[in-house]
Amino acid sequence: MDIAFVLYDNLTALDLVGPYETLSWHPAATPHFVAEQTGPVYTDNGLVMHATTTFADLAAPDVIVVPGSSRFVDALEDTVLLDWLRAAHPHATWTASVCTGSTLLAKAGILTGRPATTHWGARELLGSLGAVVSHERVVIDGSVITGAGVSAGIDLGLTLSAEIWGEEAARAVQLMLEYDPRPPFDSGSPDKAGPELMAKVGQLLSPRSG
Amino acid sequence: MDIAFVLYDNLTALDLVGPYETLSWHPAATPHFVAEQTGPVYTDNGLVMHATTTFADLAAPDVIVVPGSSRFVDALEDTVLLDWLRAAHPHATWTASVCTGSTLLAKAGILTGRPATTHWGARELLGSLGAVVSHERVVIDGSVITGAGVSAGIDLGLTLSAEIWGEEAARAVQLMLEYDPRPPFDSGSPDKAGPELMAKVGQLLSPRSG
Repeated sequence: MDIAFVLYDNLTALDLVGPYETLSWHPAATPHFVAEQTGPVYTDNGLVMHATTTFADLAAPDVIVVPGSSRFVDALEDTVLLDWLRAAHPHATWTASVCTGSTLLAKAGILTGRPATTHWGARELLGSLGAVVSHERVVIDGSVITGAGVSAGIDLGLTLSAEIWGEEAARAVQLMLEYDPRPPFDSGSPDKAGPELMAKVGQLLSPRSG
Repeated sequence: MDIAFVLYDNLTALDLVGPYETLSWHPAATPHFVAEQTGPVYTDNGLVMHATTTFADLAAPDVIVVPGSSRFVDALEDTVLLDWLRAAHPHATWTASVCTGSTLLAKAGILTGRPATTHWGARELLGSLGAVVSHERVVIDGSVITGAGVSAGIDLGLTLSAEIWGEEAARAVQLMLEYDPRPPFDSGSPDKAGPELMAKVGQLLSPRSG
């Protein structure tokens, strides 16, 4: 099973690594790291990943995983990436996005009229691109699965692992990854964070999304 | 603040990316990806990361973060890595490990007589290397902070962010990363997984750790 993890400039590393770590361990999985060109790709806080395959060389993967970016507005102008998504999606068993990766799927026309989720800071934009915006952490609609912000990629990956290989396989990888989360604080969603922290983080996010 | 994220062959990507994503966003953080040589480093499921700095060029970072590996037994023989840890640790404000990264700290003598945690599959080995093994998800002892398996690196990173920059900063990054986990299953620890799944996963892990 060919899984295409899509790389592009300034992607958010954890958006990609959550689904990667939950899906790639399976013996039937063949992970590919695909971009316009092979070679180094900078994520948005400095970590560099390597693309191992080009879009041209992987036209029809079984699974597509699109991470988000704190600079996703730039990625929305990446016509090579969007054209590849548009062409590859109809052949894929699953098309997945994490965080603002959903806005790329929407821009490619894949989410029109579909329920989908995204990072809380991108909900309005996702709606304006034609999706029916959900506030759920993981949303499945047909062959499309979308996750909320950044860390939701782990929950998405386990959910998708169960869809592909069954619940026991997903439970096994959850145990391997010791995914028994104990956040030290409880500020992981707009509802829980409260208005003061929301305002502060909104200020931090806005220049990075420009 | 110079943060050294340590890369070595077959590290587990999520072990590194959890702390990376929770710490590197801060304006005062300067992340470095350090290895024996600069260039590509393969993680244990195929993703390639890029080392940007050598051990020789970063002798005294403020924070050291050591990820684990499903092939950590090989890393325990990496004398260049162990010598660097031994020399750098006394100068660091914080030395952190995730998952079986703790066994590298222990082999370097940093955990002797200290409480520390690790992946559930490596508890016995960690004890044999001189640490006082804890089953907690995150353990702080002096300037050393250790996390349990793989995904615990996110909880460790938030905890460490609060120690370094205060609780409000940690709450802000938790909100940015939308870390409001909703695991679809409840099998993330040996206690919860039950004996049948434990036996199955134990079989899966043993050849990879050899």
